[in-house]
Amino acid sequence: MNYKMIRNILGWLLLFEAGFMLVPLITGLCYAEAEVWSFAVTALICAAIGGLCVWKKPKDPVLYAREGFVIVALSWIILSLFGAIPFFVSGTIPNYVDAVFETVSGFTTTGASILTAVEPLPRCMLMWRSFTHWVGGMGVLVFIMAFIPLSGGQNMHIMKAESPGPSVSKLVPRVKTTALILYSIYLVLTLIQFILLLCGGLNVFEALCTAFGTAGTGGFGVLNDSMASYSPYIQWVVTAFMLLFSVNFSCYYLLLLGRIKDAFNAELRTFIAVVGTVMLVVTLNVRGLFDTLGEALRHVAFTVASLISTTGFATENFDAWPELSRTLLVLIMFIGACAGSTGGGLKVSRLMILFRGACNEIGTLIHPRRVKRVTIDNRPVEAEVVRATNVYMMWYVLLFTVSVILISFDDHDLITNFTAVAATINNIGPGLNLVGPTGNFAFFSIPSKLVLIFDMLAGRLELFPMLVLFAPQTWRR
Amino acid sequence: MNYKMIRNILGWLLLFEAGFMLVPLITGLCYAEAEVWSFAVTALICAAIGGLCVWKKPKDPVLYAREGFVIVALSWIILSLFGAIPFFVSGTIPNYVDAVFETVSGFTTTGASILTAVEPLPRCMLMWRSFTHWVGGMGVLVFIMAFIPLSGGQNMHIMKAESPGPSVSKLVPRVKTTALILYSIYLVLTLIQFILLLCGGLNVFEALCTAFGTAGTGGFGVLNDSMASYSPYIQWVVTAFMLLFSVNFSCYYLLLLGRIKDAFNAELRTFIAVVGTVMLVVTLNVRGLFDTLGEALRHVAFTVASLISTTGFATENFDAWPELSRTLLVLIMFIGACAGSTGGGLKVSRLMILFRGACNEIGTLIHPRRVKRVTIDNRPVEAEVVRATNVYMMWYVLLFTVSVILISFDDHDLITNFTAVAATINNIGPGLNLVGPTGNFAFFSIPSKLVLIFDMLAGRLELFPMLVLFAPQTWRR
Repeated sequence: MNYKMIRNILGWLLLFEAGFMLVPLITGLCYAEAEVWSFAVTALICAAIGGLCVWKKPKDPVLYAREGFVIVALSWIILSLFGAIPFFVSGTIPNYVDAVFETVSGFTTTGASILTAVEPLPRCMLMWRSFTHWVGGMGVLVFIMAFIPLSGGQNMHIMKAESPGPSVSKLVPRVKTTALILYSIYLVLTLIQFILLLCGGLNVFEALCTAFGTAGTGGFGVLNDSMASYSPYIQWVVTAFMLLFSVNFSCYYLLLLGRIKDAFNAELRTFIAVVGTVMLVVTLNVRGLFDTLGEALRHVAFTVASLISTTGFATENFDAWPELSRTLLVLIMFIGACAGSTGGGLKVSRLMILFRGACNEIGTLIHPRRVKRVTIDNRPVEAEVVRATNVYMMWYVLLFTVSVILISFDDHDLITNFTAVAATINNIGPGLNLVGPTGNFAFFSIPSKLVLIFDMLAGRLELFPMLVLFAPQTWRR
Repeated sequence: MNYKMIRNILGWLLLFEAGFMLVPLITGLCYAEAEVWSFAVTALICAAIGGLCVWKKPKDPVLYAREGFVIVALSWIILSLFGAIPFFVSGTIPNYVDAVFETVSGFTTTGASILTAVEPLPRCMLMWRSFTHWVGGMGVLVFIMAFIPLSGGQNMHIMKAESPGPSVSKLVPRVKTTALILYSIYLVLTLIQFILLLCGGLNVFEALCTAFGTAGTGGFGVLNDSMASYSPYIQWVVTAFMLLFSVNFSCYYLLLLGRIKDAFNAELRTFIAVVGTVMLVVTLNVRGLFDTLGEALRHVAFTVASLISTTGFATENFDAWPELSRTLLVLIMFIGACAGSTGGGLKVSRLMILFRGACNEIGTLIHPRRVKRVTIDNRPVEAEVVRATNVYMMWYVLLFTVSVILISFDDHDLITNFTAVAATINNIGPGLNLVGPTGNFAFFSIPSKLVLIFDMLAGRLELFPMLVLFAPQTWRR
């Protein structure tokens, strides 16, 4: 294990985190809020520790796969531990575990909150919550790699470990350039949404926070009722952008290159089909609860987009909808967004690989000598990717089950426990019952909160980095 | 597709079913019940149709894998469709779909009932319900193969398709002899339990029905309160035998051969560990609900044995237990019994293969060049079995999800829907909430009942035969 290199990269991470804190710092100064000192202090601490870590450049920059996983897992943990300090020292969130929960929920773009009301919070704190979504959405190490000098093939291991989806595709041969292109698209899309929100009458602060929350498919809002009191125009803009940020960013790159047919790949087409079908069925199912069809459609479109993109904004208490709708909404929480987007969940392409593999096997049962390979977009999927996808599912189910059992010690009902884990591991935010869109995660015990913190990180990093961290082989020579 | 051979075997099946009906027929005659004619008539119909089908022996006896799957799937469907006739024509169950539900539930050893009370039923009907458990427990085709003349390797495909567990092991080279040994062990164990129940004061009828229900890990009882009103002695006997029938029958064969160390294989040891741990945790969790520790232990042992063996008998309304216990009980519903037993669920060895495979993959992530094979009892598991196990899980999750969505059209709560599917696909019987140990399945709509019937069959036959039946490739030339 190349500990010096790990220390070096974690140092850069802290330096960047100090930089990130300028955003809430400036917000706090604009509104002349007393709590702004907490960001200044934390940023200084991050900068000091980070500076010490990067002071001496390691001689041996070689990183292997396991270092990649360890760096990614540790980065996200450290990012959250330091990111929680402002909430804690300012007294906004008096319990440090709660502060970490809120910060992890932010960076992992979950949006699950332990706060019972957000409106009394200082704006600098609200800005920091929303900004962590934006940083976490695209991946913080991918961001860092676009800037810090890492030689050649080393960073691929990190990108692989941090990027969502069954396999990672480089848009261009160089990882650094790929990261820059992705972040540019991310920035431009966020900017467009910000402007559209301003046009809808939101002030700069609200528009920025909402755009950050949408872009990262996070879910933290600045109002207690999430998006319910915003105008239909704002709600439709957010709906559209939640879906746009659920799309693999390489599709946008292909669109820019004019390769429209390639952009509308099998995953995107499946995603559109699933979204359309679920919206249709749920709209028919809840039609009677609303005055007009248009209103029903707006709330359903918003809710479906919010849950499949794993954002977690809400305009309506979907927990009160009929059982068919609730079941379908829980289902899309698991499906999640496309690979290579800022959304969470299992990812459409992963499920496609699993489903096609399962169908092929039925064919093999019938004709044992005829072995068919899994193909996506007419290209065969590597056997290794198919296997890794299967293993991913196993660990997912295992982690899910263990988490539900662990938090059931709190003796809340099964639906609450089940959807609390679903909402955190898939990085959504709200679930059903006690953790429904009108509830929050404050009532869980400290051990349960720690379990859910682990689930949020494991979900965002797609399990393996967090599992590698706990495997004894990782730390053997 | 060798249709003539399929017809022939299905013919034998009906002849055997006519024979099975002698059991309720004799019961009905003993108690001079009016409804006994329905068994006589059905047996005659089965014998007539069966006789016609086996009249001409097919010239070409060759069966391939796909015929094996199709025969198994069709056998169980036909067995149930004809087995339901006595319930229907006698007016005991006025709706034919309900009668099929009850019969499928019997043969698949699920024990889920659409009856609100069983005590008013004629004894011949109760005997038939319990006897279907006994027939279905060990597999009806395995039984038939022990008697009908099928040449050499042909019957292996059928045995493979019908036997539970990730891979089928022949005890002796000849399938026919293997089937005979398995059925002898089954018969002897049932007999021992029957005698122990008689010693406990049950009458012959009650003892027989209870022994059949336990041996098949079915769950139909003859009293409305299942096993609650029986003495602690009877409850402990049933507990012990539910666990004994959850063990791979080849372990008993090895014990008889004196190979004790081989008998206590990794699967059995894991099963014992899981049962012990869950019993301990649940007992501590529910301790306060009972007067004495002994009473708590008795009910917990019974419930855990009942659910992990997928029997479904009940002495207590475990739906009212604390959340941790309920969650653990739902978990063991999924784990299920050992492979090669009469129990259902995912099977311990299947989960072991999945878990070990998943652990190995983490090692492969850390050291990409070090590939480890999955081993059970120090023997490597064939790569094909590991792959098939992964695919099994995929289809299991898929069928589970689709079933929950389909029955959620009825607008019952999510816990009811979720555990109704869990209880049927794992062949248990009771679930939680509306389908809890004090409830039943009567309130579901006809379409939902059809979905659950499919799930019971798919669960008992371990998915693939039912899936092959619906694959278009099966029916192509």
